[in-house]
Amino acid sequence: MAQIEAAQADTVIAPSLLAADFARLAEAAESVAGAVDWLHVDVMDNHFVPNLTLGPPVVKSLKAATDVPLDCHLMIEDPERWALGYAELGAHNVTFHAEASADPATLAKRLRSAGAKAGLAIDRDTPVEDYLDLLPEFDTLLIMTIKAGFGGQAFMPELLDKVRTARRHAKAGHLELRIEVDGGIAEDTIARAAEAGADAFVAGTAVYGADDPAEACRRLRSLADAAR
Amino acid sequence: MAQIEAAQADTVIAPSLLAADFARLAEAAESVAGAVDWLHVDVMDNHFVPNLTLGPPVVKSLKAATDVPLDCHLMIEDPERWALGYAELGAHNVTFHAEASADPATLAKRLRSAGAKAGLAIDRDTPVEDYLDLLPEFDTLLIMTIKAGFGGQAFMPELLDKVRTARRHAKAGHLELRIEVDGGIAEDTIARAAEAGADAFVAGTAVYGADDPAEACRRLRSLADAAR
Repeated sequence: MAQIEAAQADTVIAPSLLAADFARLAEAAESVAGAVDWLHVDVMDNHFVPNLTLGPPVVKSLKAATDVPLDCHLMIEDPERWALGYAELGAHNVTFHAEASADPATLAKRLRSAGAKAGLAIDRDTPVEDYLDLLPEFDTLLIMTIKAGFGGQAFMPELLDKVRTARRHAKAGHLELRIEVDGGIAEDTIARAAEAGADAFVAGTAVYGADDPAEACRRLRSLADAAR
Repeated sequence: MAQIEAAQADTVIAPSLLAADFARLAEAAESVAGAVDWLHVDVMDNHFVPNLTLGPPVVKSLKAATDVPLDCHLMIEDPERWALGYAELGAHNVTFHAEASADPATLAKRLRSAGAKAGLAIDRDTPVEDYLDLLPEFDTLLIMTIKAGFGGQAFMPELLDKVRTARRHAKAGHLELRIEVDGGIAEDTIARAAEAGADAFVAGTAVYGADDPAEACRRLRSLADAAR
């Protein structure tokens, strides 16, 4: 269990490729490199969520195309079967859904052994309280601020209560835990998420819908830093 | 039911993007445009096959990136739920697996109504005889010449018996039917598949593993034409 004494981690900005041009992902990565910390990769399988996006062959090509660490968010069934493959392809974070996993703590250990950071994601309707005891096993807790499955949805501020609960718990336990928010994060919402205790921010449309994606990332970072 | 009197259709060459660089799909399309008829898009969902590749958001970006008709091969469960979405995104062909469909004939009608060509795919272990009566409902019959799920597998010549059976049946019924072969098609195998009665050829590694993908397509076409 990694522990720190209240040192505040740097803000992480993670543009979501879900809002990028999938025919030009290398360019999408290049357009934000230098202004971001992670690239958020939304993996969906038609089963855990009603959409199918991309999987290992695309992650493999992305890994070869960019040096930006890949933040793989697995919105898929049976992560016990598939998650390790993403670690082996060189993903920086492998985040799977609590709702889909039979044994999150064991899977987290396997991911860490494979050299990846382990992330636990909880969807809109999942209480964070059920998973607080598992947090020492994880590097990242991803809290959906929309319902998982599609980009472009509106931010749901009431879900920030989960962020507050998780941050309080992490502070009390001296856990070095990233809390990542995903869904509807943009210039008008990022400060609220940062104030609630999030320190990693997924943004899709707010980045790739902007004329200058790198500049959009810098503005998001500055808003988050000010709020934290 | 479309009928022709023994006019031989032109050879179709359909490079499979499964062997391309997924971070640069627009370039992969561009590199063969003018030398090919379709781009073959392998959609896999972790469930029908043990791999996850790409889905609608990627097809949407591809459609915007290239004028080459998209030949979407759905290796997914529940095509009744998902296939129509690919037609609506502008796929030229939407081919689903017989093994995954509850009612292939009805789905074919819906796809044609949506403006797409309807394709029926049968995996390595599925007898073609079970589906001959359905062929009038389809524009394309895709016969796997490997086990569906991954690129790079070796061609299985014994599966060409299915191509012969289907071509005989189509000729006898005056059906205008494309017979597409998928798996291990390369310069050393394409002639055998063409002789057996195939007229559409998916090639992955043989195209995108070549120094000059367009030239590789021209050579494949010339070998197929000579054999037919």
